Amino acid sequence: MATDLPDYSQDPAFAIHVGGKLEVRSTIPVRDKDDLSLAYTPGVARVCTAIADHPELAHTYTWTSKVVAVVTDGTAVLGLGDIGPAASMPVMEGKSLLFKEFADVDSVPIALATTDVDEIVDTVIRMAPSFGGINLEDISAPRCFEIEDRLRAALDIPVFHDDQHGTAIVSLAALTNASRLIGKPLSQMRGVIAGAGASGIAVCRILLNAGVGDIAVSDSKGLIYQGRDGLNSVKQALAEDTNKAGLTGSTEEALRGADFFIGLSGSTVAESAVATMAEDAIVFALSNPTPEVEPDVAAKYARVVATGRSDHPNQINNVLAFPGIFKGAFDVRAHSITEGMKVAAAEALAAVVTDEELAADYIIPSPFDARVAPAVVAAVSAQARAEGVNRI
Amino acid sequence: MATDLPDYSQDPAFAIHVGGKLEVRSTIPVRDKDDLSLAYTPGVARVCTAIADHPELAHTYTWTSKVVAVVTDGTAVLGLGDIGPAASMPVMEGKSLLFKEFADVDSVPIALATTDVDEIVDTVIRMAPSFGGINLEDISAPRCFEIEDRLRAALDIPVFHDDQHGTAIVSLAALTNASRLIGKPLSQMRGVIAGAGASGIAVCRILLNAGVGDIAVSDSKGLIYQGRDGLNSVKQALAEDTNKAGLTGSTEEALRGADFFIGLSGSTVAESAVATMAEDAIVFALSNPTPEVEPDVAAKYARVVATGRSDHPNQINNVLAFPGIFKGAFDVRAHSITEGMKVAAAEALAAVVTDEELAADYIIPSPFDARVAPAVVAAVSAQARAEGVNRI
Repeated sequence: MATDLPDYSQDPAFAIHVGGKLEVRSTIPVRDKDDLSLAYTPGVARVCTAIADHPELAHTYTWTSKVVAVVTDGTAVLGLGDIGPAASMPVMEGKSLLFKEFADVDSVPIALATTDVDEIVDTVIRMAPSFGGINLEDISAPRCFEIEDRLRAALDIPVFHDDQHGTAIVSLAALTNASRLIGKPLSQMRGVIAGAGASGIAVCRILLNAGVGDIAVSDSKGLIYQGRDGLNSVKQALAEDTNKAGLTGSTEEALRGADFFIGLSGSTVAESAVATMAEDAIVFALSNPTPEVEPDVAAKYARVVATGRSDHPNQINNVLAFPGIFKGAFDVRAHSITEGMKVAAAEALAAVVTDEELAADYIIPSPFDARVAPAVVAAVSAQARAEGVNRI
Repeated sequence: MATDLPDYSQDPAFAIHVGGKLEVRSTIPVRDKDDLSLAYTPGVARVCTAIADHPELAHTYTWTSKVVAVVTDGTAVLGLGDIGPAASMPVMEGKSLLFKEFADVDSVPIALATTDVDEIVDTVIRMAPSFGGINLEDISAPRCFEIEDRLRAALDIPVFHDDQHGTAIVSLAALTNASRLIGKPLSQMRGVIAGAGASGIAVCRILLNAGVGDIAVSDSKGLIYQGRDGLNSVKQALAEDTNKAGLTGSTEEALRGADFFIGLSGSTVAESAVATMAEDAIVFALSNPTPEVEPDVAAKYARVVATGRSDHPNQINNVLAFPGIFKGAFDVRAHSITEGMKVAAAEALAAVVTDEELAADYIIPSPFDARVAPAVVAAVSAQARAEGVNRI
């Protein structure tokens, strides 16, 4: 059988994946039968009984209130599309690894063998007593919106679709700092977002909430505008809230005079179109591994260029947000992650970059910047308390 | 709020449970962006693509084929009964801890917010791509039988209800060594099992398969026999296969002349009844924390006495079996755990006790005996290969 397979032995990505990337360990010693009699029977029975009598004690005496389920159905994995649950697992394990490494948050990857919205919702609700939060991951649009909405309504723990909100938070932080650098307020900006999937829509929503002047969003059929034929309900709502200028053409046409471009589409944008953008243009070409426009090309015309790649400056990387967001929510046992908590996370992330550090090639910190997670955690916890969604 | 709660601060079982007992850690380093580019994007995409192209590679490049879901609905937790999913979590976390400590098996506790058989089965099937095995735990009878049967039929990974089979395997090992000690073959033994729940029925089944001469099983209404009114289908099947002697009275009446008694009921057995057992009687009083008969009392009449407690000799403890059973199955990627593999585990466990060690107060090794897990692992793997249920 092995002889039919390609040779992966020269690729270090395969070498580090052998056996997977995670383990579940005990946090307490089990050296002898005395330890066992506390961690397991008979001692554990007293803890179970106490929780049965006082359910809120589950927060204190189990790991459930601080462990995240990373849930996917494998339908929109990275830029690879619908590769199914088994093939999605390396990404989900990676997500769990990042949760632990960057904010000491425990999490468990759960890839589901169903793509049915009702079944996904039911399954997650049934698993929920085992977890303190649900991180939805790589579920295709528009199903992801309904799944998140229904789970948020059904559960009293944080539910967060990272492809939407993680990307939105980090993009807002980066655009905030780009605005700070060039001295042009968000309210005076008109932007273009290529991509009306989960991340494109969420980025658009958070930027509008943050006061961006106008945004035109495009999908594979061009710009989304009121009256365009065949819009689904999510895009129809978007049409009502965006594109005040009433543009009807292509992404590239909309770039003429635009202050920023955010690419979340996997499509490409011609150099000639980037050349038509406004002075001090901002280009976030976030598709991975191939940006919508090569950053070196974009930099000929744009003042600030960011990508989703680690080998270029200004990497817009969700890992800057999601570990600290869940940690911040868990620290106060928040029963949800609100829009306010997301904005607070973005502001905290932007503020990590000092005035001295702020530069065209440094609008967003590195994931390995030790200031990031504590800043996000503190801001999210504080905002949860301010909004009263905290339990402690 | 805290002032309304009992004071648990003096109980060390509570102290070690603060924050739960588990964590999920990375098995690979994430020191810098080069590490990140292999463990996560862009490197991980190549691994995902390879699995999408060659699904069997999920076994090699994810943790799924070596991680167990410890699944419960909280309906039959220890001797505490139906305390619900949240209150069951300390036991489930304990189980995960034991998997890791005793056989280096990773596992995840999943307590479900449903007690409906169809919903439990559907939920586990949907989660299954994330796991290499399913350990059912503390699900009440008779639902547990249907759930296990349906999951075994639906899934091509090991499904094992530990309350049934773990107890059965360790009981068979202990009875095998008691037989070895007293020189009376299993085929010449007549026994009594108090308790017709998950564990009582499973112990009865494995002992009959191992050749025990006759067994009478009792439930809360007394002995089970053919023609007794109101037997459910599981007990009706049991009536057909057991109690060849046709006894119809109480557990205690059946003990007269019996060679062994196994208590899995939470009920009590009078000293006077134990006194009527055969010469060289064997008493396994396994209810926890209160054995059916105090071991000191039983020892006045019985040659061999075992309990479920760690503070008496001969502890019949499932942890002697389940970690090594899953590890043995995983090592050969077995697609199920067969009856043969269970018997092989019991034989291996019994054989750990050497002729020199074998004694009335040493018929079963300690969970901390380093010989146990390797012996069980090797026997289970070998039997899986012998039966052809292995994949590697």
